[in-house]
Amino acid sequence: MRDIKVSLVGYGIVGHGVVDVLTRKREILRDMGLNLMLVSVTDHTGTVLSEDGVDANKILGERTLANVATSSMKGKEAINAIDSDLMIEVTPTNIVHGQPGLGHMEAALASGKHVVTSNKGPLVVSYGSLKKLAEDNGVMLKFEATVGGTMPLISLVERTLVGNTILGVRGIFNGTCNYILTRMTEEGIPYAHALSEAQDMGIAEADPSYDVEGVDTAGKVLILANSLFNMNVKYSDVNVTGITGVTPEALALAKKRGYAIKLIGDVPALTVRPTLVPLDSPLAVAGTLNSAAIYTDLSGTITVSGLGAGSIETASAILTDIISIYRTKRIDAIF
Amino acid sequence: MRDIKVSLVGYGIVGHGVVDVLTRKREILRDMGLNLMLVSVTDHTGTVLSEDGVDANKILGERTLANVATSSMKGKEAINAIDSDLMIEVTPTNIVHGQPGLGHMEAALASGKHVVTSNKGPLVVSYGSLKKLAEDNGVMLKFEATVGGTMPLISLVERTLVGNTILGVRGIFNGTCNYILTRMTEEGIPYAHALSEAQDMGIAEADPSYDVEGVDTAGKVLILANSLFNMNVKYSDVNVTGITGVTPEALALAKKRGYAIKLIGDVPALTVRPTLVPLDSPLAVAGTLNSAAIYTDLSGTITVSGLGAGSIETASAILTDIISIYRTKRIDAIF
Repeated sequence: MRDIKVSLVGYGIVGHGVVDVLTRKREILRDMGLNLMLVSVTDHTGTVLSEDGVDANKILGERTLANVATSSMKGKEAINAIDSDLMIEVTPTNIVHGQPGLGHMEAALASGKHVVTSNKGPLVVSYGSLKKLAEDNGVMLKFEATVGGTMPLISLVERTLVGNTILGVRGIFNGTCNYILTRMTEEGIPYAHALSEAQDMGIAEADPSYDVEGVDTAGKVLILANSLFNMNVKYSDVNVTGITGVTPEALALAKKRGYAIKLIGDVPALTVRPTLVPLDSPLAVAGTLNSAAIYTDLSGTITVSGLGAGSIETASAILTDIISIYRTKRIDAIF
Repeated sequence: MRDIKVSLVGYGIVGHGVVDVLTRKREILRDMGLNLMLVSVTDHTGTVLSEDGVDANKILGERTLANVATSSMKGKEAINAIDSDLMIEVTPTNIVHGQPGLGHMEAALASGKHVVTSNKGPLVVSYGSLKKLAEDNGVMLKFEATVGGTMPLISLVERTLVGNTILGVRGIFNGTCNYILTRMTEEGIPYAHALSEAQDMGIAEADPSYDVEGVDTAGKVLILANSLFNMNVKYSDVNVTGITGVTPEALALAKKRGYAIKLIGDVPALTVRPTLVPLDSPLAVAGTLNSAAIYTDLSGTITVSGLGAGSIETASAILTDIISIYRTKRIDAIF
């Protein structure tokens, strides 16, 4: 049995999902030989510490840790002080400066902790230097949950399609945009009405620009470009058009001809724009689903789809990353 | 660098693809630390042996090994005599008695060789005893290519969705049936016409019953049931209806209501039958594509699609299995 001390930084929707999932899967993980102990949970109000594992029942009902914190430590101070093998970073995303996640990841990697994250910001801002910091410290940086939520993409390429050369990846990486375009098509309603409906349902934010202007999708395109294609590019290299100019008339005309209009991110083209997709293509998924077509030299085109967001779903992708850290062996290092 | 001696048994369409792919990917595999050497290729006419690796240029132009064999050894005799770490078994499938693949796999596993295969027959007939033989001999039996060709399904469940409990798998597992149903829908033509077209294109066999009666799909359902769900069931436990009774009228009516009719295999229901699938579902792929929806407790529904057949595509799935054998560590054994 391998004992693994895990610290969680960030206690919003995804953070709650992580605590829930790690608790639910404790026995299954032990069956795999992994004794995962959540030794700390930190948010902007403080930290809950427990060497024997944080009790999920005591914190899952709390929106923040304000009432249950056992220490006032926050952020980098907590990361440096807490003895753990792996940090899960799920603070809010900022793709301009990457903070506070960037500082958290740097502190964790520099002190020899593996990092698993759903936070795009630090990877958009500093993928190359974070990757190098991980390598220099002999630890891993894993981020399946940053692109497409629970939809497996990075692990699919790195593990299942490992013998292939990846020629390109195109996909629907934003469930909010996909929902709006789907509803505009189904009901023939204008953008503003579909957006308003999505906001009522909690699928779009009050300020929807991060999603509908294509910023979120562009961040994901950038992460795929730098991680899967080693492109070393920055946000301004991505050519971005959002969905605010798409009309119900255009959607209806496309449908008549057998196409859907979807917001498609493309690597290595580094574009994000509304694109015609054949209705019978596996890429043309509806509602809040995400999808990705992976173009390969041997396997042809593999398409995958799944929910792009959700607390438990995102936590599930984080769990996959954690397991893969401890199950993957470096062939050259072992033999 | 890990030296791995590979023997290939079966030299039909998939066997040719395997020789091609192992040759093409030699350098990439070496970069991963795997020095794969194809030390023998065996078919029903004899064996080509080479300790330094069989020269692909000398055999890829040959339909069988009759003109190039360096030894008259065949089948189990060759498997027992040849010193290799891993056998790739790609002889023709027989799902009634599983031979000759079953005997080949038993011989290889019993002599401590890993087995990687695209041959459904032996798994349909004797999954449980083959799995046990592998475990007793400390080797692995991998068969991603048996279900859905290059479409990743077993590895996706075992590796990428590893933290999940799998509630069910439903999918299109036969490209021939999917092609026929797609063409019947597109052109409004009866089954017999679409079948004839598929035969002309080499998509259906002269005797199409194995595909169109649902036998092939049922074999795949059985493999998924026994491997992913530990169900220990046999072929007669699967309730099978093929596509020969599907009419263009039924397809047209379904389409009008927003559905496609697809031949769907279902685990753990153990059914194969023509089924209504919503047109905008990621499962509703067209042409010769295969697809599979994986229902999970944490990640919701993940759907994957890809080509279900093809020489290079199937060889690619075999390659993935080979790499995974040498990259996966048993956590409990290492620590």
